[in-house]
Amino acid sequence: MSAVSLIRAAVLIIGDELLSGRTQDTNLRTIANFLAPLGIQVAEARVVSDAPEDIAAAVNALRAAYAYVFTTGGIGPTHDDKTADAIAAAFGVPIGVRDDARAILAAHYGAHTELNEARLRMARIPEGATLIANPVSKAPGFQLGNVFVMAGVPSIMRAMLEDVAPRLERGAVVQSVTVRAAGLREGDLAAPLEALQRAEPAVSFGSYPWYAPPDGFGVHLVARSPDAAALARGQAGLLALAQDLGVQGEVQA
Amino acid sequence: MSAVSLIRAAVLIIGDELLSGRTQDTNLRTIANFLAPLGIQVAEARVVSDAPEDIAAAVNALRAAYAYVFTTGGIGPTHDDKTADAIAAAFGVPIGVRDDARAILAAHYGAHTELNEARLRMARIPEGATLIANPVSKAPGFQLGNVFVMAGVPSIMRAMLEDVAPRLERGAVVQSVTVRAAGLREGDLAAPLEALQRAEPAVSFGSYPWYAPPDGFGVHLVARSPDAAALARGQAGLLALAQDLGVQGEVQA
Repeated sequence: MSAVSLIRAAVLIIGDELLSGRTQDTNLRTIANFLAPLGIQVAEARVVSDAPEDIAAAVNALRAAYAYVFTTGGIGPTHDDKTADAIAAAFGVPIGVRDDARAILAAHYGAHTELNEARLRMARIPEGATLIANPVSKAPGFQLGNVFVMAGVPSIMRAMLEDVAPRLERGAVVQSVTVRAAGLREGDLAAPLEALQRAEPAVSFGSYPWYAPPDGFGVHLVARSPDAAALARGQAGLLALAQDLGVQGEVQA
Repeated sequence: MSAVSLIRAAVLIIGDELLSGRTQDTNLRTIANFLAPLGIQVAEARVVSDAPEDIAAAVNALRAAYAYVFTTGGIGPTHDDKTADAIAAAFGVPIGVRDDARAILAAHYGAHTELNEARLRMARIPEGATLIANPVSKAPGFQLGNVFVMAGVPSIMRAMLEDVAPRLERGAVVQSVTVRAAGLREGDLAAPLEALQRAEPAVSFGSYPWYAPPDGFGVHLVARSPDAAALARGQAGLLALAQDLGVQGEVQA
């Protein structure tokens, strides 16, 4: 195993629209794929409604359990955007319109659009927070302690991650390899795969069946590890496993 | 408000591959859209790793807080499929291969495929559970108390829901309407939308901006309620709101 430690994070996805089935979340996957090369593993995710007490309870549970918490959603100008106030409540700190956030919005809207009360809601920042830049639509996110509060719109959330990255401690990077084995069945590979798992405890092996009707099927065999040498042995083991079962495994990019 | 009560459920998505960014979950949305017409609202979702202690802790937290819990993933034949044992541990009941589940697998695999130890893992059912039929690949899910344990493969999970539905109590159905308003900005509609929310407390209003670069933008205004009359007033209110701001709202199917 690497001497660098693993860093575990949580993602909190906020919004009634994710729970009602209206909207398909993609932010969890984007965040996981962004953090992985930094050596930060997403270890849990939750999806909660816009109810402030649900948001606050989840934030407090997750920030105590993980190195970082990344939230998405609920920081816009409308009445159903309750994340900033809920985060302030979770931390027990005051919240109000902050001058630097107001200046960002004023510069963005200029003389043509009124910086009305609704838009000023987006300048409400909990005391002690630092802003997260939003190069897309300007209204900032913020960091409070180990919690990073970002927009829900995927393109804005993705842009905010760029400003977040330099603030994060880097851990051991978990690399992965995938071996595609067409025609292999999980019920046939389970025993040798479990033996391989026992032989390589520094590697985490997973098996994911796929189906391509009418006739195609197979498995993706995944090995994950922060230890490059162990991962290489894991990949070799997966290819050998497939070959022993009469199938030519294919390493995927 | 309807006299029929609201029924709240949770979804628990299980698997390292969802947290690593390898796989995009779609089961949450499928479950939410399946349950909504039955009068069951998904009120929270969690995504956890394959670690049995994470699965058991989440199941115990959610089954105490919600009427139903629906889990997906981790019930296949390989060593990383740990859900059934974790659920048994969460409930404090024994688990073992059950005759009826074994018979289903034996009939499916027939004389040509060995019902080996790995495949028999899929017949391990916690004591006191009832099976959930799997018309796709036969290996059953199970129900234990208010927890429904289903496959992670989306097509199999979706098929299992059909066997689950008749077991569920029906609650008040929350209907929704969406008004699309091109050219409207959230900062301009926030105040009248909040006034509408105050005037119609039995309706939950949400606002979701959309962008279609280079020039297109607007909002989807959503009203949700179990009360049909209130929802109709909510829809009329949203159309009037858009008109007052100089935009023709469009009711979406």
